[in-house]
Amino acid sequence: MESITKFSMTVCPFVKSSSVQSLRQLSSTSGGLASQARQCPFMAAALQAKEQSRNYSRASNPLNATASSNSTTVKSSNSTPYSFQSNQIPANQLNLSSNETVFDYNGYLESEMEKKRVDKSYRFFNNINRLAHEFPKAHRTNESDKVTVWCSNDYLGMGKHSKTIEEMKKVLDTYGSGAGGTRNIAGHNRHAIKLESEIAALHKHEAALVFSSCFVANDAVLSMFGQKLKDLVIFSDELNHASMIQGIRNSRAKKEIFKHNNLQDLEARLAKYPKSIPKLIAFESVYSMCGSISPIEAICDLADKYGALTFLDEVHAVGMYGPHGAGVAEHLNFDAQLKSGMNKVNTETVMNRIDMVTGTLGKAFGTVGGYVTGKAKLIDWFRSYAPGFIFTTTLPPAIMAGSSTSIRYQRSTLNDRISQQKNTRYVKNNLNDIGIPVIPNPSHIVPVLVGNAADAKRASDLLLDKHNIYVQAINFPTVPIGEERLRITPTPGHGPQISNQLIGALDSVFNELNLNRINDWKAQGGLCGVGSENASKIEHIWTDEQLNLTDADLNPNVFEPTVAPIGVSSGVSAY
Amino acid sequence: MESITKFSMTVCPFVKSSSVQSLRQLSSTSGGLASQARQCPFMAAALQAKEQSRNYSRASNPLNATASSNSTTVKSSNSTPYSFQSNQIPANQLNLSSNETVFDYNGYLESEMEKKRVDKSYRFFNNINRLAHEFPKAHRTNESDKVTVWCSNDYLGMGKHSKTIEEMKKVLDTYGSGAGGTRNIAGHNRHAIKLESEIAALHKHEAALVFSSCFVANDAVLSMFGQKLKDLVIFSDELNHASMIQGIRNSRAKKEIFKHNNLQDLEARLAKYPKSIPKLIAFESVYSMCGSISPIEAICDLADKYGALTFLDEVHAVGMYGPHGAGVAEHLNFDAQLKSGMNKVNTETVMNRIDMVTGTLGKAFGTVGGYVTGKAKLIDWFRSYAPGFIFTTTLPPAIMAGSSTSIRYQRSTLNDRISQQKNTRYVKNNLNDIGIPVIPNPSHIVPVLVGNAADAKRASDLLLDKHNIYVQAINFPTVPIGEERLRITPTPGHGPQISNQLIGALDSVFNELNLNRINDWKAQGGLCGVGSENASKIEHIWTDEQLNLTDADLNPNVFEPTVAPIGVSSGVSAY
Repeated sequence: MESITKFSMTVCPFVKSSSVQSLRQLSSTSGGLASQARQCPFMAAALQAKEQSRNYSRASNPLNATASSNSTTVKSSNSTPYSFQSNQIPANQLNLSSNETVFDYNGYLESEMEKKRVDKSYRFFNNINRLAHEFPKAHRTNESDKVTVWCSNDYLGMGKHSKTIEEMKKVLDTYGSGAGGTRNIAGHNRHAIKLESEIAALHKHEAALVFSSCFVANDAVLSMFGQKLKDLVIFSDELNHASMIQGIRNSRAKKEIFKHNNLQDLEARLAKYPKSIPKLIAFESVYSMCGSISPIEAICDLADKYGALTFLDEVHAVGMYGPHGAGVAEHLNFDAQLKSGMNKVNTETVMNRIDMVTGTLGKAFGTVGGYVTGKAKLIDWFRSYAPGFIFTTTLPPAIMAGSSTSIRYQRSTLNDRISQQKNTRYVKNNLNDIGIPVIPNPSHIVPVLVGNAADAKRASDLLLDKHNIYVQAINFPTVPIGEERLRITPTPGHGPQISNQLIGALDSVFNELNLNRINDWKAQGGLCGVGSENASKIEHIWTDEQLNLTDADLNPNVFEPTVAPIGVSSGVSAY
Repeated sequence: MESITKFSMTVCPFVKSSSVQSLRQLSSTSGGLASQARQCPFMAAALQAKEQSRNYSRASNPLNATASSNSTTVKSSNSTPYSFQSNQIPANQLNLSSNETVFDYNGYLESEMEKKRVDKSYRFFNNINRLAHEFPKAHRTNESDKVTVWCSNDYLGMGKHSKTIEEMKKVLDTYGSGAGGTRNIAGHNRHAIKLESEIAALHKHEAALVFSSCFVANDAVLSMFGQKLKDLVIFSDELNHASMIQGIRNSRAKKEIFKHNNLQDLEARLAKYPKSIPKLIAFESVYSMCGSISPIEAICDLADKYGALTFLDEVHAVGMYGPHGAGVAEHLNFDAQLKSGMNKVNTETVMNRIDMVTGTLGKAFGTVGGYVTGKAKLIDWFRSYAPGFIFTTTLPPAIMAGSSTSIRYQRSTLNDRISQQKNTRYVKNNLNDIGIPVIPNPSHIVPVLVGNAADAKRASDLLLDKHNIYVQAINFPTVPIGEERLRITPTPGHGPQISNQLIGALDSVFNELNLNRINDWKAQGGLCGVGSENASKIEHIWTDEQLNLTDADLNPNVFEPTVAPIGVSSGVSAY
């Protein structure tokens, strides 16, 4: 009897959530749980269906091909296929000399890898060694085999910046190569304090918390929310990054996936729940594979209207937008933020309205790591409860120091952002002029549509081997099947001269492989906004006026967070 | 009708797994799904219980204190508390001028942090800046305020090693501060290839894969197994690390938690399942908070007997055990491994029997990052499917190069491991002589039992402020309530002289706070093996004989993995 109860708890949420007392009551009446399960209109039908499908899969699944059907432990105990889960057999009674064989792990792995080969999603890594002193060049396996890198996320070339590198070398000499512990145990230091203070100041938020990566930050924060905040509903843009999807899945919260950047769909979903139910809207500012930008203010309006928290991933925007590089949220109040310098703006801003921003140190800031910012109370909650923060080694002091230097530098200059945007426009305009299909978007991403996996890989290989240009092909599952592309990311180092090389090379590759140009897509009715008749005109997020600004226009006031670092021992015992 | 079906799919696994056709059939008979749900003996009782508990929590939960009970959307639609989940209300029909208030997020956060303060688990971080040239000293906030660090996981002092630091500086100069992309997009390079080859060679396995941290490696690998391998059962030691617990929870696989290091309990649980069901035994070699070591060989025997894969976390053992620092699995064939040098041993070894080893670069190897090793096919599967590997920025080239240097160095010398073990014995023996209660264990961990959170924190603060010695207090949830401790980790740099300072300081602190010594615990019947009458004698894993070896005893043969790096583009198109 106990085993049936246990089994029911595993598979039925209602049994699971019932008290021991009420389960005892249920067991003692109407012939016990087992017969009740068979009477249940849901379970009876579903069990039958499951049994049929299981028998089918046993016979046809190649992974079970080597397993003998003489599965005595199952057969001897009970007629349902689940019996083994509750069938306690002492080890000394198990007939191990039977001809039952173990699960075929190798066969399973082989079939999994075969799938990747069949659907052409098996990935071959290119050995690309980016050279700090020859940016944006890299060497391949052989040091003399040089290529120009056109697909790195080191968007501003900060990975080669002498200020960052010199600071890292200095800290390496003084403080060594590793932090030596978690933040709680020997791994908390002045570099962590300084970096979190710098990040909080960048976003003009009260506090920040650094994680090993922004994948970890997104996963840790979103999964913690759902696991801890009872009844939370998470509203997630359908194009959200894998890290957010993982966090939401791990959160076990109820989720509502809304159509990409679609406010109507989001509102309809929000309106389904009472205001008193906790809600979280999770979205990105720049979607990295298509370059689209979300309607942040309108989403904040909906969040206010329906009582939701906002979680904004600015991973592809930090360093790149806003007068100080805090991201798209800062960019939306460009003039006010420019005028206030690093100080907070006195009136309400979009940055203030966002509850949580996550960002990365590994793209525009040129190092590695991720973070979340927000109110001190919220950050302290993450600091105190998130396993992905608590139980992991702190980033090395040199990484944290280099990141602080890099952020501080980008807060103090507009040059790199503007130069990057100008180079992006140059590439987009020139590709457009020769009919190479760039998926239209208002950001710094240049997605060149190819439309199938094999051609995208061929184009990438041709660029690399024939033209010494490295642009990785982006295939499924990163983008949908049929929308495969080459994702190009100009930096301030990709000026007109090397851009012309890229444009010429793409022209040649498109000819050689006979790939669709804009007019070909147009003839087919358009795809991803390429060649679409009714595509609305894209407005660049960096306006022409903003691109004419110089560092002299920046107000140099320095903002430091006003709240003292949280959870830092004052040297006085807390007890 | 459709909304009830949708709701049922959310909450009932049987409905969820039924085909659309059978759901339609169910809906069209017996008064539809809604009335059937109320007839279900499980759901009816559980719904009623849930309604009662929900009404109770609404009235008593302080988080809802500010929320008005005038929740029109719930009340107007249906009598069950779940009705809002299926009650689609167009935004323009929602009465937002009602006095219903939003969820009280601030109140929730306050109550969560209050819990931490009440149970004394709120964490205050100490600002500890470990100095490379004065190892094991660090400065606090003020640079002249120096302390000796006695709780870092930089077990061998590799974080200050000139070989590692010089290599990192060289690579920083040449290749910059960051990798600039994921492994698939611009972030794969010679440093990643070399590091994974070095790690595979260390463990004498076919291949290795590097992650941002071992927290991520454990989470990614375990969760992927359960999510992809149908019917998998994971057998997990009850003391496994938070990262493994998270991975197992995220895997959604059925799990069996066996008693710590208890082979009988493990076998009884394995024996419940047929051999043909896939199984994975997840365990650690050295458990870091108590220093216990698992019976690896016996667990491999059980894995063979019942057809299970073995997943061994050697995070606290790599660098520390075995003639080449590959961990406890290597140590168990010490003589054969010593004789074979870095080459593979010809006969079966424990290292060969383990399917997966996870390890860290952030402890004994002195940098940051984590990894998994195993057969090339298995590693390629992780490489191809694990989101935590695929969708994150590669570790910086300098971190990977420094890690390779550090591993290669530790493979080529016994000195640091032996010196660390001798210092550990010195500290354990001398603490024991003056009755300071060290939890008995065969490893390099020195856990000093205190027994309550407030005293552990007080002892840590006194050591720091009065004796300039930093040992972090380890409280709940890292250890059970009542077993709070000071966790001491000697390194090769903690010789007799500074060990004597520690021993004297602990003696003084134990007197000042009147903490239990060994005899006090004995009088209370013992705790954690301290003062227990029938505690079995602990045998050091490093034997006296092994501690007399020198580098001259090491066979210098160099082992490089025989399998070519997986998934690396040959320059030839795969299509």
